Amino acid sequence: MTVFEPLVFNRILLTIDEDDSASTKRAFRYAVTLAQSANVELGICSVIENHDINIYDSMMPAKLDEKREQLQTVVDGYVSQAQVAGAKNVTGFIAEGGDVDDVILEQALPNFHPDLIVCGADTEFTAHRVAGAVSLRLAKKAPISVIVVR
Amino acid sequence: MTVFEPLVFNRILLTIDEDDSASTKRAFRYAVTLAQSANVELGICSVIENHDINIYDSMMPAKLDEKREQLQTVVDGYVSQAQVAGAKNVTGFIAEGGDVDDVILEQALPNFHPDLIVCGADTEFTAHRVAGAVSLRLAKKAPISVIVVR
Repeated sequence: MTVFEPLVFNRILLTIDEDDSASTKRAFRYAVTLAQSANVELGICSVIENHDINIYDSMMPAKLDEKREQLQTVVDGYVSQAQVAGAKNVTGFIAEGGDVDDVILEQALPNFHPDLIVCGADTEFTAHRVAGAVSLRLAKKAPISVIVVR
Repeated sequence: MTVFEPLVFNRILLTIDEDDSASTKRAFRYAVTLAQSANVELGICSVIENHDINIYDSMMPAKLDEKREQLQTVVDGYVSQAQVAGAKNVTGFIAEGGDVDDVILEQALPNFHPDLIVCGADTEFTAHRVAGAVSLRLAKKAPISVIVVR
């Protein structure tokens, strides 16, 4: 008879969009509920898709900086809320690149090395090229566990 | 300032296959870890796909009964292990029908009314017609949260 080994996630990556959809809010609640336990680290990540930035904007660094600051403010807001709710180890960061799911897989995962991604089912990015929710593409492609929150 | 509301899942449906893949084992560990908390009910479900049963078999009810018993034994084994591990409220059941994901969505959900489906990323059924893992199809189509465990 083998002894039962509990499975607990210790490094949780929450992916958020700017839109603050109902499922993103629930994903936040779930991630923070897990992060209220000791020894759990929570990363909160959002992505600027390069193709959000049209050619006119890309010629104006000030505009791009503004966009970065705006998203950083959103992420910082989530980080503060998580800390107030009792999450002890919270890090917020933004990433930039092509499609959201690829940026998360290729930048956020190697940097934060989570064991669970928490993502709202409807988490979407306004201008992105690939059809379908980010959560499903992460569930399909990530090398780690993914919870699609509804 | 709004008060933080934790998000906890109370009725967890674990879907298993006969193959006992690595990800199904981890899905079991995660589901049971959650079910060790009081007030959590765990349902453990597996599915006989009708098209598993070829025409020759379908003319022989004894063969079909044997298949049902075999799968029930697998499910019962998981239920016992979950109970030994400290899960208080565990129910095992098997369902039958067309594609696994549709059977889960159309039979298991209305019967057990879970708030979370736990499924291994590689959970597969030998003979099923639809390409791709069951977990991803559930993550896409379920009206509730789904965790794809790796």
